Amino acid sequence: MDDEGIIPEALEETITQVMAAGRRIKFLYSVPTFHNPAAVTLAAGRRARILDICRRSDLLLIEDNPYGLLGFDGEPQRALRADSAEGVVYLGTFSKTVAPGLRVGWALAPHAIRDKLVLAAESAMLCHSSLAQLMVREYLASQPWQEQIKLFCELYAERRDAMLGALETSMPPGCRWTRPGGGFYVWLRLPGGLDSKAMLPRAISARVAYVPGTGFYADGSGGEYLRLSYCYPEPAKIREGIRRLAGVVEAETELRATFGAWPADSES
Amino acid sequence: MDDEGIIPEALEETITQVMAAGRRIKFLYSVPTFHNPAAVTLAAGRRARILDICRRSDLLLIEDNPYGLLGFDGEPQRALRADSAEGVVYLGTFSKTVAPGLRVGWALAPHAIRDKLVLAAESAMLCHSSLAQLMVREYLASQPWQEQIKLFCELYAERRDAMLGALETSMPPGCRWTRPGGGFYVWLRLPGGLDSKAMLPRAISARVAYVPGTGFYADGSGGEYLRLSYCYPEPAKIREGIRRLAGVVEAETELRATFGAWPADSES
Repeated sequence: MDDEGIIPEALEETITQVMAAGRRIKFLYSVPTFHNPAAVTLAAGRRARILDICRRSDLLLIEDNPYGLLGFDGEPQRALRADSAEGVVYLGTFSKTVAPGLRVGWALAPHAIRDKLVLAAESAMLCHSSLAQLMVREYLASQPWQEQIKLFCELYAERRDAMLGALETSMPPGCRWTRPGGGFYVWLRLPGGLDSKAMLPRAISARVAYVPGTGFYADGSGGEYLRLSYCYPEPAKIREGIRRLAGVVEAETELRATFGAWPADSES
Repeated sequence: MDDEGIIPEALEETITQVMAAGRRIKFLYSVPTFHNPAAVTLAAGRRARILDICRRSDLLLIEDNPYGLLGFDGEPQRALRADSAEGVVYLGTFSKTVAPGLRVGWALAPHAIRDKLVLAAESAMLCHSSLAQLMVREYLASQPWQEQIKLFCELYAERRDAMLGALETSMPPGCRWTRPGGGFYVWLRLPGGLDSKAMLPRAISARVAYVPGTGFYADGSGGEYLRLSYCYPEPAKIREGIRRLAGVVEAETELRATFGAWPADSES
Protein backbone atom coordinates (compact mmCIF):
# COMPACT_ATOMS: atom_id res chain seq x y z
CA MET A 1 0.00 0.00 0.00
CA ASP A 2 1.18 3.48 -0.86
CA ASP A 3 0.71 5.42 2.35
CA GLU A 4 1.60 8.84 1.00
CA GLY A 5 -1.83 9.64 -0.44
CA ILE A 6 -2.74 10.51 -4.03
CA ILE A 7 0.04 9.57 -6.47
CA PRO A 8 0.58 12.66 -8.67
CA GLU A 9 1.43 10.62 -11.79
CA ALA A 10 -1.69 8.48 -11.34
CA LEU A 11 -3.84 11.59 -10.93
CA GLU A 12 -2.44 13.13 -14.11
CA GLU A 13 -2.99 9.94 -16.03
CA THR A 14 -6.57 9.64 -14.80
CA ILE A 15 -7.36 13.25 -15.71
CA THR A 16 -5.92 12.73 -19.18
CA GLN A 17 -7.92 9.52 -19.68
CA VAL A 18 -11.22 11.00 -18.47
CA MET A 19 -10.80 14.11 -20.59
CA ALA A 20 -9.76 12.07 -23.63
CA ALA A 21 -13.04 10.16 -23.22
CA GLY A 22 -14.84 13.53 -23.58
CA ARG A 23 -16.03 13.61 -19.99
CA ARG A 24 -15.85 16.68 -17.80
CA ILE A 25 -14.35 16.49 -14.29
CA LYS A 26 -16.19 18.77 -11.88
CA PHE A 27 -13.78 18.56 -8.97
CA LEU A 28 -11.29 16.41 -7.10
CA TYR A 29 -12.51 15.40 -3.65
CA SER A 30 -9.79 14.63 -1.17
CA VAL A 31 -9.16 14.05 2.54
CA PRO A 32 -5.43 14.82 2.40
CA THR A 33 -4.72 14.41 6.11
CA PHE A 34 -5.48 11.20 8.06
CA HIS A 35 -7.75 10.00 5.30
CA ASN A 36 -11.05 8.26 6.01
CA PRO A 37 -10.98 5.30 5.41
CA ALA A 38 -7.47 4.78 4.06
CA ALA A 39 -5.76 6.42 7.07
CA VAL A 40 -2.99 7.83 4.86
CA THR A 41 -1.74 11.41 4.69
CA LEU A 42 -0.78 13.17 1.50
CA ALA A 43 2.99 13.55 1.81
CA ALA A 44 4.39 17.09 2.05
CA GLY A 45 6.38 16.53 -1.15
CA ARG A 46 3.24 15.62 -3.10
CA ARG A 47 1.06 18.51 -1.97
CA ALA A 48 2.50 21.20 -4.24
CA ARG A 49 2.44 18.78 -7.17
CA ILE A 50 -1.23 17.88 -6.64
CA LEU A 51 -2.10 21.58 -6.44
CA ASP A 52 -0.12 22.22 -9.59
CA ILE A 53 -1.86 19.43 -11.51
CA CYS A 54 -5.24 20.76 -10.42
CA ARG A 55 -4.28 24.28 -11.45
CA ARG A 56 -3.07 23.17 -14.89
CA SER A 57 -6.18 21.04 -15.42
CA ASP A 58 -8.45 23.82 -14.19
CA LEU A 59 -9.76 21.40 -11.61
CA LEU A 60 -11.32 22.55 -8.36
CA LEU A 61 -9.97 20.72 -5.31
CA ILE A 62 -12.21 19.94 -2.34
CA GLU A 63 -10.02 19.63 0.76
CA ASP A 64 -12.07 17.85 3.41
CA ASN A 65 -10.15 18.09 6.65
CA PRO A 66 -12.09 16.72 9.62
CA TYR A 67 -9.10 15.06 11.29
CA GLY A 68 -6.34 17.61 10.65
CA LEU A 69 -5.95 18.61 14.32
CA LEU A 70 -5.98 15.00 15.50
CA GLY A 71 -2.38 14.12 14.64
CA PHE A 72 -0.22 12.11 17.00
CA ASP A 73 3.18 13.53 16.11
CA GLY A 74 4.42 17.03 15.38
CA GLU A 75 2.56 20.06 14.10
CA PRO A 76 -0.64 19.99 12.04
CA GLN A 77 -0.11 19.62 8.27
CA ARG A 78 -0.29 22.80 6.26
CA ALA A 79 -3.67 22.96 4.51
CA LEU A 80 -3.62 22.75 0.71
CA ARG A 81 -5.96 25.72 0.77
CA ALA A 82 -3.22 27.83 2.40
CA ASP A 83 -1.35 27.68 -0.93
CA SER A 84 -4.31 28.04 -3.30
CA ALA A 85 -7.16 30.19 -2.01
CA GLU A 86 -8.75 30.34 -5.47
CA GLY A 87 -8.40 26.69 -6.40
CA VAL A 88 -9.49 24.96 -3.21
CA VAL A 89 -12.74 24.62 -1.25
CA TYR A 90 -11.73 23.81 2.31
CA LEU A 91 -14.17 21.96 4.56
CA GLY A 92 -13.82 22.03 8.33
CA THR A 93 -15.98 20.60 11.10
CA PHE A 94 -16.36 20.67 14.86
CA SER A 95 -17.73 17.12 14.80
CA LYS A 96 -14.40 15.48 15.66
CA THR A 97 -13.03 18.13 18.01
CA VAL A 98 -16.08 19.51 19.88
CA ALA A 99 -19.17 17.31 19.43
CA PRO A 100 -20.61 15.40 16.45
CA GLY A 101 -24.18 15.94 17.69
CA LEU A 102 -23.94 19.68 17.06
CA ARG A 103 -23.51 19.21 13.28
CA VAL A 104 -21.53 22.43 12.89
CA GLY A 105 -18.84 22.82 10.29
CA TRP A 106 -17.60 25.46 7.91
CA ALA A 107 -16.36 25.97 4.37
CA LEU A 108 -13.71 28.30 2.99
CA ALA A 109 -14.35 28.81 -0.69
CA PRO A 110 -13.54 31.20 -3.53
CA HIS A 111 -16.08 34.02 -3.57
CA ALA A 112 -18.22 32.81 -6.50
CA ILE A 113 -18.47 29.29 -5.10
CA ARG A 114 -19.28 30.60 -1.63
CA ASP A 115 -22.27 32.48 -3.05
CA LYS A 116 -23.54 29.28 -4.66
CA LEU A 117 -23.00 27.33 -1.43
CA VAL A 118 -25.06 29.87 0.50
CA LEU A 119 -27.88 29.58 -2.05
CA ALA A 120 -27.72 25.77 -1.95
CA ALA A 121 -27.79 25.77 1.85
CA GLU A 122 -30.70 28.20 1.92
CA SER A 123 -32.74 26.13 -0.49
CA ALA A 124 -31.91 22.87 1.30
CA MET A 125 -32.51 23.96 4.89
CA LEU A 126 -33.17 27.73 5.00
CA CYS A 127 -30.59 28.18 7.75
CA HIS A 128 -28.53 26.16 10.19
CA SER A 129 -29.29 25.86 13.90
CA SER A 130 -28.40 29.17 15.52
CA LEU A 131 -28.37 27.46 18.90
CA ALA A 132 -25.75 24.92 17.84
CA GLN A 133 -23.59 27.68 16.37
CA LEU A 134 -23.90 29.75 19.54
CA MET A 135 -22.87 26.73 21.59
CA VAL A 136 -19.75 26.25 19.47
CA ARG A 137 -18.93 29.97 19.74
CA GLU A 138 -19.31 29.92 23.52
CA TYR A 139 -17.27 26.75 23.80
CA LEU A 140 -14.41 28.14 21.70
CA ALA A 141 -14.51 31.51 23.48
CA SER A 142 -14.66 30.24 27.03
CA GLN A 143 -13.15 26.76 27.17
CA PRO A 144 -9.54 25.56 26.76
CA TRP A 145 -10.27 23.79 23.47
CA GLN A 146 -6.62 23.52 22.41
CA GLU A 147 -5.88 21.63 25.63
CA GLN A 148 -8.91 19.43 25.06
CA ILE A 149 -7.69 18.54 21.58
CA LYS A 150 -4.29 17.61 23.03
CA LEU A 151 -6.08 15.25 25.41
CA PHE A 152 -8.04 13.77 22.50
CA CYS A 153 -4.79 13.23 20.59
CA GLU A 154 -3.22 11.40 23.53
CA LEU A 155 -6.36 9.31 23.94
CA TYR A 156 -6.52 8.37 20.26
CA ALA A 157 -2.76 7.73 20.05
CA GLU A 158 -3.08 5.24 22.89
CA ARG A 159 -5.97 3.52 21.11
CA ARG A 160 -4.12 3.51 17.79
CA ASP A 161 -1.17 1.88 19.56
CA ALA A 162 -3.46 -0.71 21.14
CA MET A 163 -4.91 -1.54 17.74
CA LEU A 164 -1.61 -1.71 15.86
CA GLY A 165 -0.10 -3.83 18.65
CA ALA A 166 -3.04 -6.22 18.62
CA LEU A 167 -3.00 -6.48 14.83
CA GLU A 168 0.73 -7.31 14.93
CA THR A 169 0.13 -9.99 17.56
CA SER A 170 -3.06 -11.59 16.26
CA MET A 171 -3.67 -11.18 12.57
CA PRO A 172 -2.91 -14.15 10.33
CA PRO A 173 -0.22 -13.83 7.63
CA GLY A 174 -1.26 -12.08 4.46
CA CYS A 175 -3.15 -9.25 6.13
CA ARG A 176 -1.71 -5.77 5.57
CA TRP A 177 -2.72 -2.50 7.17
CA THR A 178 -1.88 1.20 7.39
CA ARG A 179 -0.17 2.78 10.39
CA PRO A 180 -2.06 6.05 10.88
CA GLY A 181 -0.31 9.16 12.19
CA GLY A 182 -3.64 10.65 13.23
CA GLY A 183 -7.40 10.35 12.82
CA PHE A 184 -9.58 7.39 13.74
CA TYR A 185 -8.97 4.54 11.32
CA VAL A 186 -6.84 1.62 10.26
CA TRP A 187 -7.40 0.38 6.70
CA LEU A 188 -6.76 -3.33 6.44
CA ARG A 189 -6.37 -5.55 3.39
CA LEU A 190 -7.41 -9.18 3.68
CA PRO A 191 -5.36 -12.04 2.25
CA GLY A 192 -6.16 -13.00 -1.35
CA GLY A 193 -9.74 -13.96 -2.09
CA LEU A 194 -11.38 -13.00 1.19
CA ASP A 195 -14.37 -10.66 0.96
CA SER A 196 -14.96 -8.30 3.87
CA LYS A 197 -18.66 -7.87 3.08
CA ALA A 198 -19.33 -11.62 2.89
CA MET A 199 -17.35 -12.06 6.10
CA LEU A 200 -19.26 -9.40 8.07
CA PRO A 201 -22.12 -11.63 9.35
CA ARG A 202 -19.54 -14.04 10.79
CA ALA A 203 -17.79 -11.09 12.49
CA ILE A 204 -21.07 -9.81 13.92
CA SER A 205 -21.71 -13.29 15.31
CA ALA A 206 -18.32 -13.06 17.02
CA ARG A 207 -19.43 -9.62 18.29
CA VAL A 208 -16.87 -7.56 16.45
CA ALA A 209 -17.77 -5.09 13.70
CA TYR A 210 -16.08 -3.08 10.94
CA VAL A 211 -17.05 -1.24 7.78
CA PRO A 212 -16.50 -3.30 4.60
CA GLY A 213 -14.32 -1.53 2.04
CA THR A 214 -17.11 -1.68 -0.56
CA GLY A 215 -18.81 1.19 1.26
CA PHE A 216 -16.01 3.50 0.07
CA TYR A 217 -16.00 2.61 -3.64
CA ALA A 218 -18.59 3.85 -6.09
CA ASP A 219 -18.12 0.82 -8.37
CA GLY A 220 -18.69 -1.97 -5.85
CA SER A 221 -15.02 -2.89 -5.58
CA GLY A 222 -13.02 -2.68 -2.35
CA GLY A 223 -14.21 -6.03 -0.98
CA GLU A 224 -10.67 -7.00 0.05
CA TYR A 225 -10.50 -4.01 2.42
CA LEU A 226 -12.07 -3.21 5.75
CA ARG A 227 -12.04 -0.11 7.90
CA LEU A 228 -11.30 -0.48 11.61
CA SER A 229 -12.04 2.38 13.97
CA TYR A 230 -10.14 2.82 17.22
CA CYS A 231 -11.88 6.08 18.06
CA TYR A 232 -14.47 4.98 20.59
CA PRO A 233 -13.51 1.73 22.41
CA GLU A 234 -11.00 1.58 25.23
CA PRO A 235 -7.66 -0.21 24.63
CA ALA A 236 -8.69 -3.47 26.34
CA LYS A 237 -11.80 -3.66 24.15
CA ILE A 238 -9.76 -2.86 21.06
CA ARG A 239 -7.36 -5.73 21.81
CA GLU A 240 -10.25 -8.12 22.39
CA GLY A 241 -11.96 -6.95 19.21
CA ILE A 242 -8.86 -7.50 17.10
CA ARG A 243 -8.38 -10.93 18.68
CA ARG A 244 -11.91 -11.87 17.65
CA LEU A 245 -11.50 -10.37 14.19
CA ALA A 246 -8.30 -12.38 13.71
CA GLY A 247 -10.25 -15.54 14.61
CA VAL A 248 -12.92 -14.66 12.04
CA VAL A 249 -10.29 -14.05 9.32
CA GLU A 250 -8.60 -17.36 10.16
CA ALA A 251 -11.88 -19.28 10.07
CA GLU A 252 -12.78 -17.63 6.76
CA THR A 253 -9.38 -18.47 5.29
CA GLU A 254 -9.75 -22.13 6.33
CA LEU A 255 -13.26 -22.29 4.90
CA ARG A 256 -11.98 -21.01 1.58
CA ALA A 257 -9.09 -23.50 1.61
CA THR A 258 -11.56 -26.35 2.23
CA PHE A 259 -14.52 -25.39 0.06
CA GLY A 260 -12.98 -23.00 -2.44
CA ALA A 261 -14.32 -19.62 -3.40
CA TRP A 262 -17.84 -18.40 -2.67
CA PRO A 263 -20.27 -19.25 -5.47
CA ALA A 264 -20.85 -15.56 -6.19
CA ASP A 265 -17.15 -14.74 -6.19
CA SER A 266 -16.11 -13.55 -9.62
CA GLU A 267 -12.42 -14.06 -8.91
CA SER A 268 -12.73 -17.86 -8.62
CA MET B 1 -59.33 37.35 -2.99
CA ASP B 2 -60.63 33.85 -2.49
CA ASP B 3 -59.77 33.08 1.12
CA GLU B 4 -60.76 29.41 1.10
CA GLY B 5 -57.51 28.09 -0.38
CA ILE B 6 -57.02 26.05 -3.54
CA ILE B 7 -60.07 26.18 -5.83
CA PRO B 8 -60.83 22.57 -6.79
CA GLU B 9 -62.06 23.45 -10.30
CA ALA B 10 -58.93 25.51 -10.96
CA LEU B 11 -56.71 22.66 -9.75
CA GLU B 12 -58.45 20.19 -12.05
CA GLU B 13 -58.18 22.54 -14.99
CA THR B 14 -54.47 23.11 -14.34
CA ILE B 15 -53.75 19.39 -14.06
CA THR B 16 -55.60 18.75 -17.33
CA GLN B 17 -53.69 21.53 -19.09
CA VAL B 18 -50.28 20.46 -17.85
CA MET B 19 -50.89 16.82 -18.73
CA ALA B 20 -52.31 17.74 -22.13
CA ALA B 21 -49.03 19.56 -22.77
CA GLY B 22 -47.25 16.24 -22.17
CA ARG B 23 -45.63 17.34 -18.92
CA ARG B 24 -45.52 15.21 -15.81
CA ILE B 25 -46.60 16.61 -12.43
CA LYS B 26 -44.47 15.24 -9.62
CA PHE B 27 -46.52 16.48 -6.69
CA LEU B 28 -48.80 19.22 -5.40
CA TYR B 29 -47.19 21.29 -2.65
CA SER B 30 -49.61 22.93 -0.28
CA VAL B 31 -49.83 24.75 3.06
CA PRO B 32 -53.53 24.07 3.60
CA THR B 33 -53.81 25.73 7.02
CA PHE B 34 -52.88 29.39 7.66
CA HIS B 35 -50.96 29.53 4.43
CA ASN B 36 -47.61 31.31 4.10
CA PRO B 37 -47.78 33.89 2.57
CA ALA B 38 -51.44 34.02 1.53
CA ALA B 39 -52.77 33.56 5.10
CA VAL B 40 -55.76 31.56 3.83
CA THR B 41 -56.96 28.16 5.01
CA LEU B 42 -58.30 25.46 2.73
CA ALA B 43 -61.99 25.30 3.60
CA ALA B 44 -63.29 22.09 5.17
CA GLY B 45 -65.66 21.59 2.21
CA ARG B 46 -62.78 21.71 -0.27
CA ARG B 47 -60.44 19.31 1.51
CA ALA B 48 -62.11 16.06 0.45
CA ARG B 49 -62.41 17.35 -3.12
CA ILE B 50 -58.72 18.26 -3.33
CA LEU B 51 -57.78 14.82 -2.00
CA ASP B 52 -60.12 13.21 -4.50
CA ILE B 53 -58.65 15.16 -7.43
CA CYS B 54 -55.12 14.16 -6.35
CA ARG B 55 -56.16 10.52 -6.03
CA ARG B 56 -57.77 10.45 -9.46
CA SER B 57 -54.78 12.21 -11.04
CA ASP B 58 -52.34 9.90 -9.21
CA LEU B 59 -50.79 13.05 -7.76
CA LEU B 60 -48.84 13.02 -4.51
CA LEU B 61 -49.85 15.81 -2.12
CA ILE B 62 -47.29 17.49 0.13
CA GLU B 63 -49.10 18.88 3.17
CA ASP B 64 -46.78 21.38 4.81
CA ASN B 65 -48.32 22.29 8.14
CA PRO B 66 -46.06 24.52 10.24
CA TYR B 67 -48.86 26.74 11.58
CA GLY B 68 -51.66 24.19 12.15
CA LEU B 69 -51.59 24.48 15.95
CA LEU B 70 -51.47 28.29 15.85
CA GLY B 71 -55.16 28.93 15.14
CA PHE B 72 -57.05 31.70 16.91
CA ASP B 73 -60.52 30.16 16.96
CA GLY B 74 -61.79 26.64 17.59
CA GLU B 75 -60.05 23.31 17.20
CA PRO B 76 -57.11 22.59 14.88
CA GLN B 77 -58.07 21.69 11.30
CA ARG B 78 -58.09 18.00 10.48
CA ALA B 79 -54.93 17.17 8.53
CA LEU B 80 -55.42 16.09 4.91
CA ARG B 81 -53.06 13.25 5.70
CA ALA B 82 -55.56 11.89 8.24
CA ASP B 83 -57.80 10.96 5.29
CA SER B 84 -55.14 9.74 2.88
CA ALA B 85 -52.12 8.07 4.47
CA GLU B 86 -50.93 6.73 1.11
CA GLY B 87 -51.46 9.87 -0.96
CA VAL B 88 -50.02 12.53 1.33
CA VAL B 89 -46.58 13.42 2.67
CA TYR B 90 -47.18 15.42 5.85
CA LEU B 91 -44.50 17.83 7.05
CA GLY B 92 -44.41 19.04 10.64
CA THR B 93 -41.97 21.25 12.51
CA PHE B 94 -41.16 22.45 16.00
CA SER B 95 -39.86 25.74 14.59
CA LYS B 96 -43.10 27.66 15.22
CA THR B 97 -44.14 25.98 18.46
CA VAL B 98 -40.88 25.24 20.32
CA ALA B 99 -37.90 27.08 18.81
CA PRO B 100 -36.84 27.84 15.22
CA GLY B 101 -33.15 27.66 16.18
CA LEU B 102 -33.40 23.93 16.87
CA ARG B 103 -34.25 23.11 13.22
CA VAL B 104 -36.22 19.99 14.16
CA GLY B 105 -39.19 18.82 12.16
CA TRP B 106 -40.68 15.57 10.95
CA ALA B 107 -42.29 13.93 7.97
CA LEU B 108 -45.06 11.36 7.77
CA ALA B 109 -44.84 9.62 4.42
CA PRO B 110 -45.93 6.45 2.66
CA HIS B 111 -43.38 3.72 3.28
CA ALA B 112 -41.61 3.80 -0.10
CA ILE B 113 -41.24 7.59 0.00
CA ARG B 114 -40.02 7.51 3.59
CA ASP B 115 -37.19 5.17 2.57
CA LYS B 116 -36.16 7.62 -0.17
CA LEU B 117 -36.35 10.54 2.26
CA VAL B 118 -34.04 8.75 4.69
CA LEU B 119 -31.54 8.09 1.88
CA ALA B 120 -31.73 11.72 0.72
CA ALA B 121 -31.22 13.00 4.25
CA GLU B 122 -28.28 10.66 4.79
CA SER B 123 -26.57 11.75 1.62
CA ALA B 124 -27.25 15.45 2.30
CA MET B 125 -26.20 15.62 5.95
CA LEU B 126 -25.46 12.09 7.24
CA CYS B 127 -27.68 12.64 10.29
CA HIS B 128 -29.50 15.40 12.10
CA SER B 129 -28.34 16.92 15.38
CA SER B 130 -28.96 14.37 18.12
CA LEU B 131 -28.65 17.13 20.72
CA ALA B 132 -31.42 19.22 19.16
CA GLN B 133 -33.69 16.18 18.94
CA LEU B 134 -32.99 15.28 22.57
CA MET B 135 -33.83 18.84 23.60
CA VAL B 136 -37.18 18.66 21.81
CA ARG B 137 -37.90 15.28 23.39
CA GLU B 138 -37.10 16.58 26.87
CA TYR B 139 -39.14 19.70 26.31
CA LEU B 140 -42.20 17.78 25.14
CA ALA B 141 -41.86 15.19 27.91
CA SER B 142 -41.30 17.57 30.80
CA GLN B 143 -42.83 20.94 29.93
CA PRO B 144 -46.48 22.03 29.54
CA TRP B 145 -46.18 22.57 25.79
CA GLN B 146 -49.91 22.58 25.11
CA GLU B 147 -50.32 25.45 27.57
CA GLN B 148 -47.39 27.24 25.95
CA ILE B 149 -49.01 26.94 22.53
CA LYS B 150 -52.23 28.41 23.96
CA LEU B 151 -50.21 31.38 25.17
CA PHE B 152 -48.61 31.73 21.73
CA CYS B 153 -52.07 31.69 20.12
CA GLU B 154 -53.30 34.45 22.44
CA LEU B 155 -50.16 36.47 21.76
CA TYR B 156 -50.44 36.11 17.99
CA ALA B 157 -54.21 36.75 18.01
CA GLU B 158 -53.59 40.05 19.79
CA ARG B 159 -50.95 40.98 17.21
CA ARG B 160 -53.16 39.93 14.32
CA ASP B 161 -55.92 42.16 15.76
CA ALA B 162 -53.47 45.04 16.11
CA MET B 163 -52.43 44.65 12.48
CA LEU B 164 -55.93 44.29 11.05
CA GLY B 165 -57.13 47.26 13.12
CA ALA B 166 -54.23 49.41 11.95
CA LEU B 167 -54.73 48.39 8.31
CA GLU B 168 -58.42 49.33 8.56
CA THR B 169 -57.54 52.72 10.05
CA SER B 170 -54.54 53.68 7.95
CA MET B 171 -54.37 52.02 4.54
CA PRO B 172 -55.42 54.10 1.55
CA PRO B 173 -58.41 52.99 -0.54
CA GLY B 174 -57.76 50.26 -3.06
CA CYS B 175 -55.64 48.07 -0.76
CA ARG B 176 -57.10 44.66 0.07
CA TRP B 177 -55.88 42.08 2.55
CA THR B 178 -56.65 38.69 4.08
CA ARG B 179 -57.97 38.26 7.64
CA PRO B 180 -55.99 35.28 8.95
CA GLY B 181 -57.55 32.84 11.41
CA GLY B 182 -54.10 31.69 12.52
CA GLY B 183 -50.42 31.73 11.60
CA PHE B 184 -48.19 34.76 11.23
CA TYR B 185 -49.09 36.65 8.06
CA VAL B 186 -51.36 39.11 6.34
CA TRP B 187 -51.25 39.07 2.52
CA LEU B 188 -51.95 42.49 1.10
CA ARG B 189 -52.73 43.57 -2.45
CA LEU B 190 -51.70 47.06 -3.50
CA PRO B 191 -53.93 49.34 -5.57
CA GLY B 192 -53.57 49.02 -9.33
CA GLY B 193 -50.13 49.57 -10.77
CA LEU B 194 -48.08 49.70 -7.58
CA ASP B 195 -45.13 47.31 -7.36
CA SER B 196 -44.17 46.05 -3.90
CA LYS B 197 -40.60 45.26 -4.94
CA ALA B 198 -39.98 48.71 -6.44
CA MET B 199 -41.56 50.26 -3.35
CA LEU B 200 -39.39 48.36 -0.86
CA PRO B 201 -36.42 50.81 -0.73
CA ARG B 202 -38.85 53.62 0.12
CA ALA B 203 -40.35 51.47 2.89
CA ILE B 204 -36.90 50.64 4.27
CA SER B 205 -36.13 54.39 4.34
CA ALA B 206 -39.29 54.82 6.40
CA ARG B 207 -38.01 51.99 8.62
CA VAL B 208 -40.75 49.50 7.89
CA ALA B 209 -40.17 46.23 6.03
CA TYR B 210 -42.17 43.46 4.32
CA VAL B 211 -41.55 40.64 1.88
CA PRO B 212 -42.49 41.54 -1.71
CA GLY B 213 -44.94 39.09 -3.25
CA THR B 214 -42.49 38.27 -6.07
CA GLY B 215 -40.56 36.11 -3.59
CA PHE B 216 -43.44 33.63 -3.61
CA TYR B 217 -43.92 33.23 -7.37
CA ALA B 218 -41.62 31.17 -9.54
CA ASP B 219 -42.38 33.25 -12.65
CA GLY B 220 -41.55 36.72 -11.28
CA SER B 221 -45.16 37.79 -10.92
CA GLY B 222 -46.78 38.74 -7.60
CA GLY B 223 -45.46 42.31 -7.59
CA GLU B 224 -48.87 43.68 -6.56
CA TYR B 225 -48.72 41.67 -3.31
CA LEU B 226 -46.76 41.99 -0.11
CA ARG B 227 -46.51 39.80 2.97
CA LEU B 228 -46.81 41.41 6.37
CA SER B 229 -45.76 39.48 9.47
CA TYR B 230 -47.29 40.22 12.87
CA CYS B 231 -45.41 37.36 14.55
CA TYR B 232 -42.55 39.18 16.26
CA PRO B 233 -43.31 42.88 16.98
CA GLU B 234 -45.47 44.03 19.86
CA PRO B 235 -48.87 45.62 19.06
CA ALA B 236 -47.67 49.23 19.45
CA LYS B 237 -44.85 48.58 16.97
CA ILE B 238 -47.24 46.85 14.58
CA ARG B 239 -49.55 49.88 14.62
CA GLU B 240 -46.64 52.24 14.01
CA GLY B 241 -45.30 50.01 11.25
CA ILE B 242 -48.62 49.92 9.43
CA ARG B 243 -48.97 53.71 9.81
CA ARG B 244 -45.57 54.12 8.12
CA LEU B 245 -46.38 51.56 5.44
CA ALA B 246 -49.64 53.40 4.69
CA GLY B 247 -47.62 56.60 4.25
CA VAL B 248 -45.28 54.83 1.83
CA VAL B 249 -48.19 53.43 -0.22
CA GLU B 250 -49.81 56.88 -0.34
CA ALA B 251 -46.59 58.56 -1.45
CA GLU B 252 -46.07 55.87 -4.10
CA THR B 253 -49.63 56.30 -5.35
CA GLU B 254 -49.16 60.06 -5.62
CA LEU B 255 -45.86 59.63 -7.45
CA ARG B 256 -47.54 57.36 -9.96
CA ALA B 257 -50.42 59.81 -10.40
CA THR B 258 -47.92 62.62 -11.06
CA PHE B 259 -45.26 60.88 -13.14
CA GLY B 260 -47.09 57.86 -14.51
CA ALA B 261 -45.83 54.31 -14.44
CA TRP B 262 -42.23 53.29 -13.81
CA PRO B 263 -40.22 53.08 -17.01
CA ALA B 264 -39.75 49.34 -16.54
CA ASP B 265 -43.41 48.73 -15.76
CA SER B 266 -44.95 46.60 -18.48
CA GLU B 267 -48.51 47.37 -17.38
CA SER B 268 -48.31 51.05 -18.35
